[in-house]
Amino acid sequence: MTAGGPVLSAAEFGVATELFFQRCAGCHGVLRKGATGKPLTPDVTREKGTEYLKALITYGSPAGMPNWGTSGDLTPEQIDIMARFLQQEPPAPPEFGMPEIEASWKLIVAPEDRPDSPQHDRDIENFMAVTLRDAGQIAIIDGDTKEVVSILPTGYAVHISRPSASGRYMFTIGRDAKIDMVDMWMDPPAIVAEIKIGLEARSVETSKYKGYEDKYAIAGAYWPPQYVIMDGDTLEPLKVVSTRGMTVDTQEYHPEPRVAAIVASHEHPEFIVNVKETGHILLVDYSDIDNLTVTDIGAARFLHDGGWDRTKRYFMTAANQSDKIAVVDSRDRKLVALIDVTKTPHPGRGANIIDPEFGPVWVTSALGNANISFIGTDPEGHPENAWKNVRTIDGMGGGSLFVKSHPNSTNLWVDATLNPDESLSQSIAVFDINNLDAGFVKLPIAEWAELGEGPKRIVQPEYNKAGDEVWFSVWSGKEQESAIVVVDDKTRELKAVIKGPEIVTPTGKFNVFNTLHDIY
Amino acid sequence: MTAGGPVLSAAEFGVATELFFQRCAGCHGVLRKGATGKPLTPDVTREKGTEYLKALITYGSPAGMPNWGTSGDLTPEQIDIMARFLQQEPPAPPEFGMPEIEASWKLIVAPEDRPDSPQHDRDIENFMAVTLRDAGQIAIIDGDTKEVVSILPTGYAVHISRPSASGRYMFTIGRDAKIDMVDMWMDPPAIVAEIKIGLEARSVETSKYKGYEDKYAIAGAYWPPQYVIMDGDTLEPLKVVSTRGMTVDTQEYHPEPRVAAIVASHEHPEFIVNVKETGHILLVDYSDIDNLTVTDIGAARFLHDGGWDRTKRYFMTAANQSDKIAVVDSRDRKLVALIDVTKTPHPGRGANIIDPEFGPVWVTSALGNANISFIGTDPEGHPENAWKNVRTIDGMGGGSLFVKSHPNSTNLWVDATLNPDESLSQSIAVFDINNLDAGFVKLPIAEWAELGEGPKRIVQPEYNKAGDEVWFSVWSGKEQESAIVVVDDKTRELKAVIKGPEIVTPTGKFNVFNTLHDIY
Repeated sequence: MTAGGPVLSAAEFGVATELFFQRCAGCHGVLRKGATGKPLTPDVTREKGTEYLKALITYGSPAGMPNWGTSGDLTPEQIDIMARFLQQEPPAPPEFGMPEIEASWKLIVAPEDRPDSPQHDRDIENFMAVTLRDAGQIAIIDGDTKEVVSILPTGYAVHISRPSASGRYMFTIGRDAKIDMVDMWMDPPAIVAEIKIGLEARSVETSKYKGYEDKYAIAGAYWPPQYVIMDGDTLEPLKVVSTRGMTVDTQEYHPEPRVAAIVASHEHPEFIVNVKETGHILLVDYSDIDNLTVTDIGAARFLHDGGWDRTKRYFMTAANQSDKIAVVDSRDRKLVALIDVTKTPHPGRGANIIDPEFGPVWVTSALGNANISFIGTDPEGHPENAWKNVRTIDGMGGGSLFVKSHPNSTNLWVDATLNPDESLSQSIAVFDINNLDAGFVKLPIAEWAELGEGPKRIVQPEYNKAGDEVWFSVWSGKEQESAIVVVDDKTRELKAVIKGPEIVTPTGKFNVFNTLHDIY
Repeated sequence: MTAGGPVLSAAEFGVATELFFQRCAGCHGVLRKGATGKPLTPDVTREKGTEYLKALITYGSPAGMPNWGTSGDLTPEQIDIMARFLQQEPPAPPEFGMPEIEASWKLIVAPEDRPDSPQHDRDIENFMAVTLRDAGQIAIIDGDTKEVVSILPTGYAVHISRPSASGRYMFTIGRDAKIDMVDMWMDPPAIVAEIKIGLEARSVETSKYKGYEDKYAIAGAYWPPQYVIMDGDTLEPLKVVSTRGMTVDTQEYHPEPRVAAIVASHEHPEFIVNVKETGHILLVDYSDIDNLTVTDIGAARFLHDGGWDRTKRYFMTAANQSDKIAVVDSRDRKLVALIDVTKTPHPGRGANIIDPEFGPVWVTSALGNANISFIGTDPEGHPENAWKNVRTIDGMGGGSLFVKSHPNSTNLWVDATLNPDESLSQSIAVFDINNLDAGFVKLPIAEWAELGEGPKRIVQPEYNKAGDEVWFSVWSGKEQESAIVVVDDKTRELKAVIKGPEIVTPTGKFNVFNTLHDIY
């Protein structure tokens, strides 16, 4: 552990490897080549030296590095170990191929042992699957009654939940790459299959094209860099495909091109797979997985997340450290545009609204500043605005993770979850789509939740099925009280607070109907 | 250089790395995971120990390992270094991406400076491009007059030469991954562009589909594992695609899936790319290289070479250490069959003949034994025989590299180049297609060349354009006299010997017309 860098004991190396994986790899990559965060390879870190690195880890940076020391997340001893660890060559994590994936697969309830019809009278289409981040669980909440129907053990810090095309099953994926498949017909909804498709992951999706409903699931891993196609009824793993390859711009080999967002095409039997570090968007044809056809669309580096335009023909996706939005025509399988937007766009799935001046637009907020960018998405009705950043308005501040609207609403909701100012991170901004120049109204969501101490960050607006309520997570510490706040979309007034000892650190919420039909 | 294995100085490590690359990597892989040769990773080699490894390198094995010591190719000191080197972790060779590829590119004569019409009256379609292996050259020989028209400096040990679809250009690729593009309209034919697409390579091909003639070239590298698409007029590199990924059977990650044979489809604008270690056959659609579509057909591990059936719809390709022939339907983009054949098939491009009993068949010989396998290729006319090994006959012995026939001929020629018995390796076997049961006639090709001392192995029958002559290389040592022997196909008698000081170690010969039209 000494060649060229400071001394580190084997025990310290183990501690640092685990800490890096938990805290740092998401942004910097396990091989530390850099992505949302900067490269941390020894050629870079050894020039900086131990003291500089300790200060940076302790205090963070305005560019987005968290203050791990002053926040109390890491001890001075841990920071000292990390500063030395970063000057060593990164250890290569193990592979996780089909043998390991298959070994992790558990079919808990076989398809023939599942019910033939829903065993309860609740409206499954208005279920909300809510990530309980630090508990390693999801809550299934009845959107009509606000009752918690099930709390289910899942992977760690479930990143997203996605319903199957029939709306019967919910698939969740943890950051630990564990997928759970929930049968929402059961009373209460229960996990019928699980699998682990790697060591770290972010994305899961199911086949939606006509004739392939509920047939396949796909998940994308951060490590190893790969995607896995599974049987949609059982999660049986069928195909593993590596994403290691060349960067889109310089065409050099990258050892860790992580799979970010995946969406299911409505135009073809295809999954659309964002490969982050290399900037390729893959259209993976699932109509014949033994003879797998993939169309590789070169976009821009550091692809992250995205969603459909309102016609569900164009996939709008952020290349966040390139400050660009890539537009893919899923019908003609081509890149339509690469649009320069604001600093580090982070759309989630974005929001589709009708701009009174520019017509149909797709909206994203940003991590890097307060800008909310509007991109024209109607090449037929408004060709002069199509694929242009037609309007930029100010939200509350940087650190925004999600925007949201609904076809039945005239509101546009924008969070500022990661903003250092508590008065912003604990509120939501709401715009009247028909009077954007008036600016936003700020609603004190955290206050409405009536909780005790805690960071209480407000994250991710999510509509109910009818589009007349918006749900917000009030995300506090693991040992503190969190809540979900439900706001009436018309009046913008508090409608309900869902809290209690089982609602631990809620983050993402996924309404079955809206998620299934890509309504946002 | 000591962790876990015997001591090796830095100088010795350098010598061994170079020797391994030159002598061993072709069969064992640079990362030593094994392919045509066995795995040589430290977990395997340390158990064997230095003395065992020295003996194996010195004396070879019946399984195909050459006797590097007793042949005089390696000294006892070199063998001692190699035996110790093999117990160390293999050094990872450097990447060679677009920056390195672009830096190697030389456009020697720009398209606008080339002639508008052929500058000589020779029949270019009957040119033979002959690899002069140890000279790092090719000879362009006029098939009509048997005159050497040009001797051109190329990459080291040119593996194959392929004409462009128009028949104007010849592309050669050296084992060192250097491509040379020869304009055969010039007088004499000359190199107009060159490029290096990696550190080690075997395959080059050009676009043949209607509308894409001479538009693109493609080359496949052994290291780094990748293929490169180039402009067909200039060799300007356009796209680099990595082949690193999962094995077809166990779906585990392999770091070194080398690109073996590449052929151009006649059914679609596609290149068909064999990926050796992982056993995938890639159909690479070159109609839109910015949005590159690839269909990945799972076949069997250790794909090597192959050729078309007589209709040019079905690609027949050997998975040689799996002892199988894979059949790809290039029209429907599917695997049609995986046929068990004999030990280590090595077809080259194979031979298409009409079997008097079984109808149209495609023929391959083998490295591992004397078997010559006939596979039915006519699913419409002879469905009962299609994709079956319908007949196996005996050639002279194992160590065969190539078979050959021609639509205008009733002969089937089979070499035994690597057979340890000189009387076989210096002869050719010829069968009468209409009387296969009569066995072969053995022609003493080396004797007819009237050369002095030397190994004088006979390799690779190649027809002239008319299909009435067969050319054989008499491949001797670099310091010894070699020759090309031309035999009359009808009479099977000697017609001409081409030799002289410039004909150094001839191996592969590529007739422009037959290679271009996939006639074999």
